[in-house]
Amino acid sequence: MPTYRLDFAYDGAGFHGYAAQSGVRTVQQDLETALAHHVGAVTTYVSGRTDKGVHASAQVVSFSTAADLDADRVVRSLNRQLGPEIGVYSLTVAPDDFHARFSATGRAYVYRVLHREAPDPLRAGTTWHVPHPLDIDAMNQAAGHVVGQHDFASFCRKAEGRSTVRELRVARWSVRGDVLAFDVAASSFCHQMVRSLVALGVDVGRGRVDAESVPGILAAGDRHLARGVAPPHGLTLVRVDFTGANPSADHPV
Amino acid sequence: MPTYRLDFAYDGAGFHGYAAQSGVRTVQQDLETALAHHVGAVTTYVSGRTDKGVHASAQVVSFSTAADLDADRVVRSLNRQLGPEIGVYSLTVAPDDFHARFSATGRAYVYRVLHREAPDPLRAGTTWHVPHPLDIDAMNQAAGHVVGQHDFASFCRKAEGRSTVRELRVARWSVRGDVLAFDVAASSFCHQMVRSLVALGVDVGRGRVDAESVPGILAAGDRHLARGVAPPHGLTLVRVDFTGANPSADHPV
Repeated sequence: MPTYRLDFAYDGAGFHGYAAQSGVRTVQQDLETALAHHVGAVTTYVSGRTDKGVHASAQVVSFSTAADLDADRVVRSLNRQLGPEIGVYSLTVAPDDFHARFSATGRAYVYRVLHREAPDPLRAGTTWHVPHPLDIDAMNQAAGHVVGQHDFASFCRKAEGRSTVRELRVARWSVRGDVLAFDVAASSFCHQMVRSLVALGVDVGRGRVDAESVPGILAAGDRHLARGVAPPHGLTLVRVDFTGANPSADHPV
Repeated sequence: MPTYRLDFAYDGAGFHGYAAQSGVRTVQQDLETALAHHVGAVTTYVSGRTDKGVHASAQVVSFSTAADLDADRVVRSLNRQLGPEIGVYSLTVAPDDFHARFSATGRAYVYRVLHREAPDPLRAGTTWHVPHPLDIDAMNQAAGHVVGQHDFASFCRKAEGRSTVRELRVARWSVRGDVLAFDVAASSFCHQMVRSLVALGVDVGRGRVDAESVPGILAAGDRHLARGVAPPHGLTLVRVDFTGANPSADHPV
């Protein structure tokens, strides 16, 4: 059976996260229901299991099917069924051993803070409005302390029996007009890790936490030392990397 | 009684346009209801009466009140009451004769077309997705024909007894990444004029209408010759100009 790769995006506002759960609307269920018209019941694997309210501009799933798919026709059909909240970019035949989750070697997210006094209704769905003065140098100093391999237990909602050790390759705040963007990349992230790092970063920026206390918070492995989580709507999955395959394509918001 | 000027923005998706109408939700009614907590019943005048679904990043209203207003406090209160769909930038005391509608000497709008094959769920609310090839030079040739003073009857939903003569100061398509933006400015616009011009422009871009037929369409003064109207969600009021006063501030989407 051929393995297919589907590249797509979504506005997370209307969904209780990516992963299927009974009784609530999820991206996975909407996607699999739409796909069923072409391939019947199917199991899909996803690169990034985003939380409730989190967006993706470059998500990937894989699935295997005996059905012979006309890619252009399926993409058009999925967009008709799923738009405007979910948008499908492409459907391609992948190597037989391609697996959106296990073949992915990296994930990149952007968290966007709207950093100005006035709110912006037209970006309320994709940015977290922080109208306070922020010391960006201090935020980047804090971010520098979390880059590398660490046990991120202080920044993860603990899942029983799962390691919270991760290698953070990129963690950097940059100014883009009135948006303060936090770019992060890692092989993978544990649950709520990015939003916990954002909440810490903003508290450092506001002078509530000293950047130099970050190594201690990290070493303590105690979630009570973290600073809560930033709201989900500022977060977007923007790229997935695969060995020997095309990365998913970011499309700027 | 002092005259106040309020600068604000909104996402038009949830509103049946700016102007109050009974039985439906409008920006004006939400705004006046929120203001009533500070000034009681009040009549506001607006710079741009946007249609159902149209956005504003720089709208202005004026009103007079005997109440002595603490501007910072009122702005915070309005944002609490009206956010996230309406965002208030500032409340200032204006000259006594300031009138948001009659003192305004110009309005500027941007219409955004998402010009690529794939939809983008994260910009679905602020762009019109046109996945077809477009000849931008031809679109700008057509736009050049409508600049200047003309009777725009072919592009206006006719209001009995109202002139449809307008002076269009700017009409220009430009490429901004995968967005094709139509910038227009005039002293004022008649009803549905911008969206009619966008629909024509896109049809010219697709080769369905010849750019050189535009002067004839304009001269005919016949709305049946127009090409319908582009959807409202791509349109945003981005600036209002006043003689001897600050223009309203655009905030990029």
